[in-house]
Amino acid sequence: MNVAIIAAGGKGSRMGGEVSKQFLLLNDIPVIIHTLRRFEQATSISDVVVVAPSDEISTFLDLASRFSVRKLSNVVAGGGSRMESVWKGIQSIRRPAVNVVAIHDAVRPLVTSEAIDRTVAAADKSGAAILAIRAVDSIKKVVDLEIQSTLRRSEIWHAQTPQCFHMDILKRAYANAVENKLSPTDDSELVENIGVKVSVVEGDNKNIKITLPEDIALAEIILTTEES
Amino acid sequence: MNVAIIAAGGKGSRMGGEVSKQFLLLNDIPVIIHTLRRFEQATSISDVVVVAPSDEISTFLDLASRFSVRKLSNVVAGGGSRMESVWKGIQSIRRPAVNVVAIHDAVRPLVTSEAIDRTVAAADKSGAAILAIRAVDSIKKVVDLEIQSTLRRSEIWHAQTPQCFHMDILKRAYANAVENKLSPTDDSELVENIGVKVSVVEGDNKNIKITLPEDIALAEIILTTEES
Repeated sequence: MNVAIIAAGGKGSRMGGEVSKQFLLLNDIPVIIHTLRRFEQATSISDVVVVAPSDEISTFLDLASRFSVRKLSNVVAGGGSRMESVWKGIQSIRRPAVNVVAIHDAVRPLVTSEAIDRTVAAADKSGAAILAIRAVDSIKKVVDLEIQSTLRRSEIWHAQTPQCFHMDILKRAYANAVENKLSPTDDSELVENIGVKVSVVEGDNKNIKITLPEDIALAEIILTTEES
Repeated sequence: MNVAIIAAGGKGSRMGGEVSKQFLLLNDIPVIIHTLRRFEQATSISDVVVVAPSDEISTFLDLASRFSVRKLSNVVAGGGSRMESVWKGIQSIRRPAVNVVAIHDAVRPLVTSEAIDRTVAAADKSGAAILAIRAVDSIKKVVDLEIQSTLRRSEIWHAQTPQCFHMDILKRAYANAVENKLSPTDDSELVENIGVKVSVVEGDNKNIKITLPEDIALAEIILTTEES
């Protein structure tokens, strides 16, 4: 069986408000509920663990009840950083025989269940796989505001989530990260750091992260095009 | 004096229609007209050259007249590739004493005149400068669908336009590119290739490129937030 960990961050200062990004409304439904529904629809996922700041757990549980979330096995209080929070989520998984763990940002509500299933399947096979998209812009390596080189665009990808790993690989990666006090840009980097090869599964640019106020409006547009 | 070259591409197959992206309407005004207005407002720019596919020049001239475009010195028929088109634009500049040439995508209508002026000023000083934004995603180097490394995010930037260069540098870069049949991802790369250091000027993520149908809706949202 495979488990998803949904990482819900704290209050987003970049949103200019006091409401955590995962609770913002997207077509009248909170972002995190959209996200959970996508995981409900993903047949590869049996259980879902939500990691949220401790002062937001009651709000989340109210929403989960109001919107009849079905696939939710545990809600865990997060730590001081995203890495700590995910680590708490991993440690909360008590079921034996967990195969793949899929880690996903609560604020990526538009991931498709098909993309989740494909990424889990790839990790099941290879041990580690993440959803990602190819770069479309020209990408530069810059130091002190001066371009050092133009990177070979065909080799550059943007990581998204879910990022999926065999449970034993993930535990080794996090143990190593905690021991060496690493601050990664994503979970994949922790796994790369222990020498495990991570494969990419091609996603699409609709799987956006809700980071800025205008992202909600963009997400609503994407939802409209999805339905048509 | 400084000149802008606005590169208008051909029919965008990714848009699913027959209308070239630069003619799509954004709040009832064609994208390229928005772009030209931003350059009209930029005090650093004296002249504007538009390079467009030959079969779209009459449409463009009608629009330029209808929307009373003021700053437009020349309209040039483009070539088979973006690089060829820009090269034709460069060669069409007959005025002596041109200092900086600012090359800009017609389909980036939301660039601010302030960002144009800042980039031109930086190029005036250093010889070569482009507008760019810092990467926010985790960026991976990927070969054969396998992650090779996570790039140091603080060093990764996305190139935008305008890309601004001293006229003599730009001519040398293009002459070299034509001679060596280079196919660059942007104009900056051609300049980098002749060993000239290019600096980056930090822009913002509102300066989007209209590439997909949903980009028009996103651009309208950005325009709304700009006005408020």
